[in-house]
Amino acid sequence: MTQSENTPARIVVDWGSSNFRAYRFTSDGVLAEQKQAAAGILTVTDGAFEAALVREIGTWLVPGCEVFLSGMITSRNGWLETPYIEAPADLTALAAGARTTQSEGGITLHFLPGVAVRNPVPDVMRGEEIQVFGSVAADETALVVLPGTHSKWVQVEQGRIVGFRTFLSGEMFALLRTHSIIGRLIPPQGASAAPVNDAAFLAGVEQAMAPTSSGLLNDVFTARSGALLNAFALTDIAERLSGLIIGHELRSGLALAPTAASIRLVGEAALCQRYKLALAHLGVAADLGPAHATVEGFRRLNAL
Amino acid sequence: MTQSENTPARIVVDWGSSNFRAYRFTSDGVLAEQKQAAAGILTVTDGAFEAALVREIGTWLVPGCEVFLSGMITSRNGWLETPYIEAPADLTALAAGARTTQSEGGITLHFLPGVAVRNPVPDVMRGEEIQVFGSVAADETALVVLPGTHSKWVQVEQGRIVGFRTFLSGEMFALLRTHSIIGRLIPPQGASAAPVNDAAFLAGVEQAMAPTSSGLLNDVFTARSGALLNAFALTDIAERLSGLIIGHELRSGLALAPTAASIRLVGEAALCQRYKLALAHLGVAADLGPAHATVEGFRRLNAL
Repeated sequence: MTQSENTPARIVVDWGSSNFRAYRFTSDGVLAEQKQAAAGILTVTDGAFEAALVREIGTWLVPGCEVFLSGMITSRNGWLETPYIEAPADLTALAAGARTTQSEGGITLHFLPGVAVRNPVPDVMRGEEIQVFGSVAADETALVVLPGTHSKWVQVEQGRIVGFRTFLSGEMFALLRTHSIIGRLIPPQGASAAPVNDAAFLAGVEQAMAPTSSGLLNDVFTARSGALLNAFALTDIAERLSGLIIGHELRSGLALAPTAASIRLVGEAALCQRYKLALAHLGVAADLGPAHATVEGFRRLNAL
Repeated sequence: MTQSENTPARIVVDWGSSNFRAYRFTSDGVLAEQKQAAAGILTVTDGAFEAALVREIGTWLVPGCEVFLSGMITSRNGWLETPYIEAPADLTALAAGARTTQSEGGITLHFLPGVAVRNPVPDVMRGEEIQVFGSVAADETALVVLPGTHSKWVQVEQGRIVGFRTFLSGEMFALLRTHSIIGRLIPPQGASAAPVNDAAFLAGVEQAMAPTSSGLLNDVFTARSGALLNAFALTDIAERLSGLIIGHELRSGLALAPTAASIRLVGEAALCQRYKLALAHLGVAADLGPAHATVEGFRRLNAL
């Protein structure tokens, strides 16, 4: 994939379950245009992925252009399933693991692989790897944390992904808030967003980290029982629950790399700030990765 | 509540969120009749609890009888809210904490209190306490485990409830199976019940107990990633997930009382057998409590 003087325009697409994000680079590597839409693969029916691509970025798809795709679009439920490459994995291995095909419209499509690790427990990612490579220097060693629905804690050594763990934190919060007995006690928010309540959030983080914690299954129940016993207000439950879940993620994640020189938070800004706040409360320093890690990752990929 | 020769017939009702269970004792303390119905308090609308009681056991409600009620019927969402009594709590304190009222039909109703503990974390129970008192001798010391939607691990010292923790295990399994990305990979069962798969269940228990576990939030995700990487079959996911969740409950619960002389499992027979199997796999002995712990508890209460 070494660029020549005649390299055609490149388009990179980060196509996940919920979101579609595309970036157009000029032939000299400049980011020229971007597009974001709530057009994740779950919104595409009957496998009509090419139609969706044309709908979102049809004007970019000129003859000779190449499209690189990553994220859940390369999964079993996506357009073309790619294999996982095994950790340790670097950017060159990622590029080598791509599957290339032609669209019906004659555009060259490169589907990037996901990354897998098998020990000590099996884990997979699709899409986060390009963010990781966009967040570290070529030979850097770091613990990269991508908070979210399925938070990833990624161990990077000398620029390679050597291991990672996924935590179901964001999905767990949504499940408990929406469907559980704990959520039933949370007062309805009405039209306005819930006010940020750092004190309740940090109280949850502290409880999860405390030696007295009996694990997540007990701690989440106390978000209900504590309110019933007036240990805190009903309006604190949601933030406390969030702190308990993120606190357990931090407790497990920090144990993975107790001597990590640096923790880098990558992803949505407000959520990264939340994690940074919790980590600071625990006396752990963290820095924030680039605002557009995916773009940086693709830029490095393009430069290979 | 000392019984005299003229003690009227006593009726005890274990009325929870999902189930209604009633028992009629004769004036000389013999269990004469019982009734069970899927008529939990969540099925009762507009507070029509007396109508529901009459519908289920109207023929038992003769003049002079007394009805004792426990479970969620005594909660904020029930018929009459009773306060919690604080641990350490014995059966005498439970009886003393009851609130007595007359029904519109002139029947004497005694609503038993729940039990609360505030340290190190807040916790509550309503209904399980009568099962605990029905499962231990008057001066016994034991760790009583009541598996279920909200499993309780209850520390009993010399016949008193001195502390307890609730684990959201059963509800967590249902949430993850029904609503999460993990459940989406589980093959539909069809009309027949899923076959029991002890090997997959115990593999989950082992993983949760292992030093390499990164906690529940990571382990439950591996029930998906492991199947994607062919570490086990799609048909194993549900049992493995159950083992992971129960394994984390056991890990935390056993840490509460590492030197417990005995663990007593109380509740639904098949579920208690599942816990006994998992505990035996971990080399921990457990015995099974009485088949009708609620009845035994009320029998002891009646004898006060």
